[in-house]
Amino acid sequence: MSAAAPACSPILGVLGGMGPLATADFMRKLVQSTPATKDQDHMPVFVHSVPQIPDRSESFLAGSDAPWPFLLSGLRVLETAGVGAIAIPCNTAHLWHARLAAATDLEVLHIGSAASEAVASHPAGLTRVGLMATSATIEGRIYHEALRAAGIDVIVPSARDQSEHVMAGIAAVKAGGLDTATSLLQSAATRLIDDGAQGLILGCTELPLVLGGASPDECNESRAVPFFDTTQLLVKACLAWWSRSKAAQPRSESFSQ
Amino acid sequence: MSAAAPACSPILGVLGGMGPLATADFMRKLVQSTPATKDQDHMPVFVHSVPQIPDRSESFLAGSDAPWPFLLSGLRVLETAGVGAIAIPCNTAHLWHARLAAATDLEVLHIGSAASEAVASHPAGLTRVGLMATSATIEGRIYHEALRAAGIDVIVPSARDQSEHVMAGIAAVKAGGLDTATSLLQSAATRLIDDGAQGLILGCTELPLVLGGASPDECNESRAVPFFDTTQLLVKACLAWWSRSKAAQPRSESFSQ
Repeated sequence: MSAAAPACSPILGVLGGMGPLATADFMRKLVQSTPATKDQDHMPVFVHSVPQIPDRSESFLAGSDAPWPFLLSGLRVLETAGVGAIAIPCNTAHLWHARLAAATDLEVLHIGSAASEAVASHPAGLTRVGLMATSATIEGRIYHEALRAAGIDVIVPSARDQSEHVMAGIAAVKAGGLDTATSLLQSAATRLIDDGAQGLILGCTELPLVLGGASPDECNESRAVPFFDTTQLLVKACLAWWSRSKAAQPRSESFSQ
Repeated sequence: MSAAAPACSPILGVLGGMGPLATADFMRKLVQSTPATKDQDHMPVFVHSVPQIPDRSESFLAGSDAPWPFLLSGLRVLETAGVGAIAIPCNTAHLWHARLAAATDLEVLHIGSAASEAVASHPAGLTRVGLMATSATIEGRIYHEALRAAGIDVIVPSARDQSEHVMAGIAAVKAGGLDTATSLLQSAATRLIDDGAQGLILGCTELPLVLGGASPDECNESRAVPFFDTTQLLVKACLAWWSRSKAAQPRSESFSQ
């Protein structure tokens, strides 16, 4: 028997572990967002969750490429396992997205594109949104260009809020301190709204764990302004990929049970 | 570069997707149960979540071996990905545990052994526990022998409760109907307690999703009787494996960052 899994539909590859709780959150949201009446209706997924990869934000800001061999290795493991596309539930890792996409024939979905589209098409016609993300995601302008092209200004926390609230809050999630994280992150969110943000992008997959809604929701409208859950928006892009891929799959490739 | 992941610790292989929400629950509990102050402290995991595998309970009860090639294929994918042990967050799939263990050199952790040990060592000295599980797990006596050897009687729901409440409740979880599932399963649990169960084994990984506590807890003592969460008890066994494996790992195999 070959190492490839018998599966009757294309398999999603998840390059995860960045951080591991965000990957588990992505998995839950993927399952809960899939129309299904039984196990077999759900998307087959292989998840490479290896959190030993060096911190993406610290590395990028220090001009270090240390995460790259880990990302490439994870990509190769997923390719070998037979996946049909790659999703990366970590915004900061998308600073290496173009290189990953160039290193494989597989489609590598882009969390920032998925989220930017949702922001640009929000029915309220947003013109100014706040970006909560790692310092590297901000510095690397993962969201800025796409949103400015759509006529949307991006505002970010003050340097002090970014360091003492956003980055400290993200670190608290990674350390399991969800209550500490909630209070740190909520205050940074409030100040962005006070500064005129008409919506907030939760542009780090740790953030929806404390600022997102309880149930999967691309855009939590119960807040003072809409909060865009980038984990959930990546899930939406994965479901769209799965739907396209199943439709394009030759009948002869399907696995007979 | 080889397909093996660069990791500084042994990788856990998860043979999952049975069902997919239970696998996501296992991942969350694994992360939240790991002592960690940063991403890199967490266990590396490779998850094979392919829910297209035929239903384990239906197959076993019909005398069909249909799940076997899917289980074996999943095992091979995990072996190829370089994992050091296998965990299966599905009680019913353990009807094939002995064959899986015989088919690989890897350690295949056993959810039933982990849970039976916890029940047998509970400080209350339980002598009679209720088993909530799929009909195949009951029929296949995954829990009966180990618990009887420990002097503990196992009681199960009436045939009608098993069909109309337990199996219907498990199916409701798999279809995303958590509220329906809660009411079906709670009533079956209550009747087992009325019948003298001094503790309840949530012997199907769908059950802790509706009957377990909100936070990871091997044994929820806030109920009328302790509820044993087999997902969480498998997590505990995985953490023990990881600890043993890291201690046994030759220094030369560690990955230098």
